[in-house]
Amino acid sequence: MQVLLLDSYDAARVERLRGLIDPSWSIATSSHGAPEDELHALLANAEAVVTQYWGERTPPAPVLSLIQLPGAGFDAIDFACVPAHSAVCNVFEHEIGIAEYVTLALLESEIRATEMDHHLRAGRWQDGFVTGAPFHGELHGKRVGFLGFGHIARATALRMKPFGVEIWTRTRTPEQAGPLAGNAGGLEALDTMLEACHHIVVACPLTSETRGILDARRLALIGPEGVLVNVARGPIVDEAALFEALSSRTLGRAVIDTWYRYPDPTAGPGVERRPSRFPFHELDNVVMTSHASGWTDALFERRYRMIAENLERLRTGRELTHVLKPPGGSAPH
Amino acid sequence: MQVLLLDSYDAARVERLRGLIDPSWSIATSSHGAPEDELHALLANAEAVVTQYWGERTPPAPVLSLIQLPGAGFDAIDFACVPAHSAVCNVFEHEIGIAEYVTLALLESEIRATEMDHHLRAGRWQDGFVTGAPFHGELHGKRVGFLGFGHIARATALRMKPFGVEIWTRTRTPEQAGPLAGNAGGLEALDTMLEACHHIVVACPLTSETRGILDARRLALIGPEGVLVNVARGPIVDEAALFEALSSRTLGRAVIDTWYRYPDPTAGPGVERRPSRFPFHELDNVVMTSHASGWTDALFERRYRMIAENLERLRTGRELTHVLKPPGGSAPH
Repeated sequence: MQVLLLDSYDAARVERLRGLIDPSWSIATSSHGAPEDELHALLANAEAVVTQYWGERTPPAPVLSLIQLPGAGFDAIDFACVPAHSAVCNVFEHEIGIAEYVTLALLESEIRATEMDHHLRAGRWQDGFVTGAPFHGELHGKRVGFLGFGHIARATALRMKPFGVEIWTRTRTPEQAGPLAGNAGGLEALDTMLEACHHIVVACPLTSETRGILDARRLALIGPEGVLVNVARGPIVDEAALFEALSSRTLGRAVIDTWYRYPDPTAGPGVERRPSRFPFHELDNVVMTSHASGWTDALFERRYRMIAENLERLRTGRELTHVLKPPGGSAPH
Repeated sequence: MQVLLLDSYDAARVERLRGLIDPSWSIATSSHGAPEDELHALLANAEAVVTQYWGERTPPAPVLSLIQLPGAGFDAIDFACVPAHSAVCNVFEHEIGIAEYVTLALLESEIRATEMDHHLRAGRWQDGFVTGAPFHGELHGKRVGFLGFGHIARATALRMKPFGVEIWTRTRTPEQAGPLAGNAGGLEALDTMLEACHHIVVACPLTSETRGILDARRLALIGPEGVLVNVARGPIVDEAALFEALSSRTLGRAVIDTWYRYPDPTAGPGVERRPSRFPFHELDNVVMTSHASGWTDALFERRYRMIAENLERLRTGRELTHVLKPPGGSAPH
């Protein structure tokens, strides 16, 4: 059987995968930027493909049983173009890294160690007990509100609990929020959470309901002392409204990992690409990272273990895990 | 009765203190840099003084019953100069802020959000899932070793536990470490902790036993991938050895809040002062803050409540709390 890796791999991961699956698998590797006839030939024979993109320009895949995403997000899969006979599956495992990133973001927003470092590095003994200078904040006693309460929000809330924070959430299924959230409600009660909480973490899927849900009016509810962290998808927060709110300080600060413009997936590391049509990079009240919050080395260990598991399930005719679209079935809605 | 505030106060805190103690107290304020005759007159009448410094040059204090430190550390109190009839008490309450700072330090050492921000701010889409670029680390699964296991280390370990770390400690009283620490030992077993752990947190008092205990040989045991965080006292880590280890990368990284040279306490905020005779500010593998890890606004709320409590105990003849030296008794050893 043949599995084709189209992205999210390197030589070490290919070797690791080889050690995790039956020797009857042959592993082919290519990329989305490969010549069309190469892709054509490879896809003609692949029973499984590891890829995060699938679209109109993807060549036919007549024997493909499994499109295995290397991550959780499936917004780059055009399900209308996926062969009817193929299953589409994703993997998680990123919630550990993302929960650590969000906790870091909130702690740094309170403590501002980076700014203190700049002061002392420049020779200015500006902060701290000797000179009685400006204090920093504590996460302790703060209210942290999660928009969405899935894997990522729960992993984050679990880690934040011992810091003495109050966990709020607004989600489509508040009755499932469980005891971690002290205050849970539906999206219709979003405004009260934005007003009450010091920190807002966006951790819900991008859907027609959530697209642009954090608009100018709602960003103002978070307020000039408030912090917004987005580790979900950029467009859940209205792009123009976010830039305006940060520029005018109607919103205090944002830590943004998920954006509005992405580089071409075939571009290598270090490609020049501004992540928004607005100059967020000119603002000093934003921390900006390039969709990397969960992008850890351990993540790929865990994910490749899951991918190997699904390949083996496919080979031995067992049920696949994390199925977004079953073979012959329809796309997720 | 008269209480004299010599440092660590501002107008707001004086007012807050006034609201917390009996109206029979009068509150005087001055500073260590005040003219000698002013200090002389004030100390002649003070029954209590809030100060972190006491030394040879401090004028006589004939009716002084209580030297109340505004913090925990008492290394700036020269007990030989303290009047025999005076008690010396300290306050804690800083462990919440310091535990948050240490967690931030460890998360940032793994994640390096600041560096990722520099990349994307410069327009380089260098990290993260689109371009398949360098990964960052996770705190998850790491071993964190605490030198000392008092208030600060415990508050930190409690917060780190849900991150899935393994807690180690080396302390004078390992039998008291309790279930938080998976691996506890005495100082004689320090080397094994330094070798085993990815992150080392210095959180013990500065004593003749701990001064310079982290010397060149031991810093090398932490290693080029290791991270050292010092929130205790600078000289527990040998100054020259630390600079050399960081410069040569035999030690990977350090987050240093406590230093070797401090500004004169009478200097205001923003005074120019390098915190070491070595140019730590030229190193890119160090985060340097000016003894500010626990220096939060909430800290002073909590501490002034404790200070007021001790003043009231003194006034009403009850036993003082957090006594370092009782009236007529001797200094701590």
